[in-house]
Amino acid sequence: MKFSDRLLEKLQPIWRKNHTHPFVQEMGAGTLDPEKFRFYMIQDYLYLIDYAKLFALGAVKAADLEDMKIFSNLLHATMNEEMSLHRQYAARFGISESELENAAPSPVTLAYTHYMLHSAQNGTLAELVAALLPCAWSYWEIGKELSEIPNALDHELYGDWITMYSSKEFGQTAQWCIDLLDKLAEGKPEKELLQLEKIFLNTTRFEYLFWNMAYHKETWPADE
Amino acid sequence: MKFSDRLLEKLQPIWRKNHTHPFVQEMGAGTLDPEKFRFYMIQDYLYLIDYAKLFALGAVKAADLEDMKIFSNLLHATMNEEMSLHRQYAARFGISESELENAAPSPVTLAYTHYMLHSAQNGTLAELVAALLPCAWSYWEIGKELSEIPNALDHELYGDWITMYSSKEFGQTAQWCIDLLDKLAEGKPEKELLQLEKIFLNTTRFEYLFWNMAYHKETWPADE
Amino acid sequence: MKFSDRLLEKLQPIWRKNHTHPFVQEMGAGTLDPEKFRFYMIQDYLYLIDYAKLFALGAVKAADLEDMKIFSNLLHATMNEEMSLHRQYAARFGISESELENAAPSPVTLAYTHYMLHSAQNGTLAELVAALLPCAWSYWEIGKELSEIPNALDHELYGDWITMYSSKEFGQTAQWCIDLLDKLAEGKPEKELLQLEKIFLNTTRFEYLFWNMAYHKETWPADE
Amino acid sequence: MKFSDRLLEKLQPIWRKNHTHPFVQEMGAGTLDPEKFRFYMIQDYLYLIDYAKLFALGAVKAADLEDMKIFSNLLHATMNEEMSLHRQYAARFGISESELENAAPSPVTLAYTHYMLHSAQNGTLAELVAALLPCAWSYWEIGKELSEIPNALDHELYGDWITMYSSKEFGQTAQWCIDLLDKLAEGKPEKELLQLEKIFLNTTRFEYLFWNMAYHKETWPADE
Repeated sequence: MKFSDRLLEKLQPIWRKNHTHPFVQEMGAGTLDPEKFRFYMIQDYLYLIDYAKLFALGAVKAADLEDMKIFSNLLHATMNEEMSLHRQYAARFGISESELENAAPSPVTLAYTHYMLHSAQNGTLAELVAALLPCAWSYWEIGKELSEIPNALDHELYGDWITMYSSKEFGQTAQWCIDLLDKLAEGKPEKELLQLEKIFLNTTRFEYLFWNMAYHKETWPADE
Repeated sequence: MKFSDRLLEKLQPIWRKNHTHPFVQEMGAGTLDPEKFRFYMIQDYLYLIDYAKLFALGAVKAADLEDMKIFSNLLHATMNEEMSLHRQYAARFGISESELENAAPSPVTLAYTHYMLHSAQNGTLAELVAALLPCAWSYWEIGKELSEIPNALDHELYGDWITMYSSKEFGQTAQWCIDLLDKLAEGKPEKELLQLEKIFLNTTRFEYLFWNMAYHKETWPADE
Repeated sequence: MKFSDRLLEKLQPIWRKNHTHPFVQEMGAGTLDPEKFRFYMIQDYLYLIDYAKLFALGAVKAADLEDMKIFSNLLHATMNEEMSLHRQYAARFGISESELENAAPSPVTLAYTHYMLHSAQNGTLAELVAALLPCAWSYWEIGKELSEIPNALDHELYGDWITMYSSKEFGQTAQWCIDLLDKLAEGKPEKELLQLEKIFLNTTRFEYLFWNMAYHKETWPADE
Repeated sequence: MKFSDRLLEKLQPIWRKNHTHPFVQEMGAGTLDPEKFRFYMIQDYLYLIDYAKLFALGAVKAADLEDMKIFSNLLHATMNEEMSLHRQYAARFGISESELENAAPSPVTLAYTHYMLHSAQNGTLAELVAALLPCAWSYWEIGKELSEIPNALDHELYGDWITMYSSKEFGQTAQWCIDLLDKLAEGKPEKELLQLEKIFLNTTRFEYLFWNMAYHKETWPADE
């Protein structure tokens, strides 16, 4: 059994919660309050900057040139294409570049990104991939699920989001992460697999908190 | 103006929120539900392990032997004395060592510790101290405040907690952290001071979330 | 005075030694033993892989999107273009890709790369740039000096090396590093500038050891 | 076969070179030029500071409390006892504390310590232990070998060195490192064992360069 098959089994109950979260469901139905999506986009942009840093750390931790090159390409594509797409998409919601760049991360955004960053910087390449995979994998899954809802791909506000994450290109990146984790996990003793599983399940759970944060537009408790 | 004076000004509204949190207030009044304190103790024990890792990272990042030695002493005292005190205290609440060590960190515990760990490992010694100071400083402050409540120091369950954090010894450690941060901040350009301030205020805010997590015994949303 | 002007003053005696090293001089005169250059190319290829990891760490440590993007571009260009140029150049000396990739780093290569990698990973972005600048700056300087020797640019074996490092493009990268270090050093207290200077001068000195290693084809003492 | 048995086999030719190095042999015979030992002591003191940082990183990387505590104890003992012994010993050679602390590391010292520091900070606990073991193990071995030379333990200058490293206490620390590496290596796939072996053999070879540096009092090439 591939390590990713074992993870796929373990993550089912969490995915079920994540994918049925009102934020996700209402995006699919096209009924999501645009203010909630706006909040999400800003936090997601901040998230993406740190996510790109994981790719950079992947290039540092890579043990061979081939993996190092793929991480370098992912970093480059994120910085030069994906962030630009995010900025264009944000502009449609009236979010300016300077609003994006001056936004403060919410506690959940800080929590999720710093959990990944520390796991990546302090750990092995396998731990890094275990940390970054849940976002890629579950977005791909959500993208595909929502794309099957009639008219969802054409929705004025959310259609492009669904198109992007259900796309073949995005799926290839997610699949590359899955395959890389399988390769890196191969032959590892059970104790180390449990550690990878722990990181993977924690970031899978952070995905839930991220949807929930966006849905409730959660920030720090107001300083009185 | 010392850098810590500037921080002291900025942190007032957050401290006011933290120190008036029901968890803190009820500890002082002796009315806190012991189940909430029990939850707190377990999470605090997990927190302490990572807090000790910050001391270890302090020894790595220290630029001179004297600071390196103090961090090494703090790490040693935490591992050999403070954790043992925590275990004894926990035993009075019926928490066994194995329960402590097998407990899973709550999302807020993970968030707070990993925010500090990444700031410390990726950043400078000044950033590390900015991350660890709020816990020491505010516990000292809370300890002193609560110790002035009549009978609080003698409370069967919470008296020892208040005694420990209002003690001269604990105060000396907190003061050493404050002085070290002042020394490290000296002469730094404003841009870097703002970054230290940001880290300091974020971990000050995480203190609030930690009290709140304990009060509501918050864990991950149940996996269905 | 810009910080780089101060460095330029301090590095003069070391540069004089580096640039008059027989390896460099004989490259310029076209008389260098190709076996020595062959040895250099293999070690330089291994060096370049770790140098690229510094760019990746630069993207991790960068405090703003603009610097992060430039580091990401440098990493990408190194992995996709520069390493490929190195492989083509090596092929002309009969060095196959597999020889390049299976080569063992000499002690000086390990020393130099790990000094930079630790300075970068453990330190600030300024320390990282202080570590990587000497190679870029001195190669540009050597490239320009050698390019003025009659016929040096057309030399069958070494002309392309001189052309690459005296090129406007390479100069722009070196200048960007210089400017970035100046920007990052601005306003820092003298104690921290001294630390940057120390790193910068150490890697400048490692440049000498690297030329010397190549000239004498130094490896580990033979295991008996 | 324990992993350390495999290493013991591989390291034989390097140990033979290291242990028959004139520096080691002349220490045993009591004929070593005290100026060479003086040079060694200063560099060894600088080395020890970074070696202690490996213990601190060991506490950061440790996966359980027990190992974390032992690393914390090793760090504490190094900072509070071993460094003090080194200072006392150095004083007998007329080396003041301020000379020790203001000394500049030689290139070999920088190379060896930064190779270890980067392996430790970027890698796993197993990689960290693979990096620090050769020094402990080979010093113990050399200590025991030299202690069998008649009168070597009583030599006015070098007797205490031999006594320290042939002592039961030092042997216990070395043995703990060996056992820890065996525990950490257990069940790891061959690819990862090869990586541990590579680090272990590199630092074993750096031991040779360190003796050789001390014997020839090697520093940076003089700046002209």
